[in-house]
Amino acid sequence: MPAPPRIAFLGTGLMGAPMARNLLRAGFPVTAWNRSRAKAEALRPDGATIAGDAAAAVRDADLVILMLENGPIVEEVLFRAGTAAAIRPGTVVADMSSIKPAEAQGHAARLAGQGIRHLDAPVSGGTVGAEAGTLAIMAGGEAEAFARAQAALTAMGRPVHVGPHGAGQLAKLANQIIVGVTIGAVAEALMLAQRGGADPAKVREALRGGFAESRVLDLHAERMIARDFTTRGRSVTHLKDLDNALDAGRRLALAETPYTALTAELFRTLLSHAGDLDHSGLLVELERRNPGQVA
Amino acid sequence: MPAPPRIAFLGTGLMGAPMARNLLRAGFPVTAWNRSRAKAEALRPDGATIAGDAAAAVRDADLVILMLENGPIVEEVLFRAGTAAAIRPGTVVADMSSIKPAEAQGHAARLAGQGIRHLDAPVSGGTVGAEAGTLAIMAGGEAEAFARAQAALTAMGRPVHVGPHGAGQLAKLANQIIVGVTIGAVAEALMLAQRGGADPAKVREALRGGFAESRVLDLHAERMIARDFTTRGRSVTHLKDLDNALDAGRRLALAETPYTALTAELFRTLLSHAGDLDHSGLLVELERRNPGQVA
Repeated sequence: MPAPPRIAFLGTGLMGAPMARNLLRAGFPVTAWNRSRAKAEALRPDGATIAGDAAAAVRDADLVILMLENGPIVEEVLFRAGTAAAIRPGTVVADMSSIKPAEAQGHAARLAGQGIRHLDAPVSGGTVGAEAGTLAIMAGGEAEAFARAQAALTAMGRPVHVGPHGAGQLAKLANQIIVGVTIGAVAEALMLAQRGGADPAKVREALRGGFAESRVLDLHAERMIARDFTTRGRSVTHLKDLDNALDAGRRLALAETPYTALTAELFRTLLSHAGDLDHSGLLVELERRNPGQVA
Repeated sequence: MPAPPRIAFLGTGLMGAPMARNLLRAGFPVTAWNRSRAKAEALRPDGATIAGDAAAAVRDADLVILMLENGPIVEEVLFRAGTAAAIRPGTVVADMSSIKPAEAQGHAARLAGQGIRHLDAPVSGGTVGAEAGTLAIMAGGEAEAFARAQAALTAMGRPVHVGPHGAGQLAKLANQIIVGVTIGAVAEALMLAQRGGADPAKVREALRGGFAESRVLDLHAERMIARDFTTRGRSVTHLKDLDNALDAGRRLALAETPYTALTAELFRTLLSHAGDLDHSGLLVELERRNPGQVA
């Protein structure tokens, strides 16, 4: 049996730390780096080697994983800090951060010039999925690079190769469109039913198991009914994702993405009127636009 | 043990026939009537008594169930054909047809004048759910009437009492809003991903099990990917339901139901350009609005 690939993990925050832990548990040697070093040090008891800078972390790696906040931060860590120069040719860089498809394509092109293979591999499932190792992982890039990263990705969740460079990020945007619009649909439907005198909790119960069934009807409708808008999924993050989807649509010369545009507009006005509630707070914005008594 | 209530079943078409069969299997005596008599006669081998007219069917019934095409037809069968006059005071009329909430409230008020109790109890789940006895049944009306109909309704599916007269029809409209908008969201997301070079079948696979999971991502996305728009759920019916939802919103003085309005507009233009496709054909309409090559 060949030795498992040595992994450099850059960015061990709320999501990255449990993902790195799952790699360690699965037997992969991991060298961790994080901008604020304490968050990397927390992985030492789990068996990680801690690196003082990103370049040192990647020097001996066969697979470099990034889990950072956004595209500009990925760019800085990868290209402005001398990290890319320290990566050996032939290495696979799997960027699991959620960034713009065009940014991912740019990173892939720059690394290709050095003989380094890039995968965009963003995730869905939140910290719960990261801890359980059940993340949905949407990967874009060459099939051979995906094959080489697959075992490590599988230690963190369920990877699917969805297409060429940038396709993983597009799939993540597709995910965010579906989740955001479904939240809006459930909010509008429950608002209508409640204004007409129906009990929204009973309506949700009646609809479960039918064609309207969804994770959103399960989780987010419950928050709406309890009027608990404590942030689990941030509206400001969801708006950023939808704006990235609109940007991707413009680059692809799409004339109309009306569901995405409507939902981005609702999040924008929600944020300006009510602040950064949970994304199920779309209900609050729809209610603001429909003043009048609640039955 | 008291004798089970005698049931009159008016309207034994595609949905009504399997529903009546489930009542017969559960031991309820059923007298069936249908405008075209042959469809009622088909229930005779299952043990149904067949009535030549609706008034004859309801005369000895403890529970009258209607499963008809729309509000005007319910009104004609119930009030213009002398049927209501033949129903004994104290009887429960459960109208399982999908009609406007305001129509259901009108019927309830007229029957109350005769001492007859009305439930609006529309269903979701299609012929598959009707045959399996697993329909979602959304009931509006008085709690006592619901309690008296509950055993019979349970023979056909999963009844939930969601509120006063009309609330069942509102819940059904809420269901149709959520299903229609979720179809639109999935269509728009898959279109974006495909135009950007991702494989929509792989994107669907990657998203399953995450927060975007839904019956629509399961069933309707598969039809979109196979480009199989053979009608299982008719666009024309879905548009009628969304128009009824918009009408209900106006009656409740709702100023904005943007998801419902957008989806109704897409179905309307879909119908004028491509005809009565399956409701997953919303993808066809979004593609028409976004001409250009498919990657």
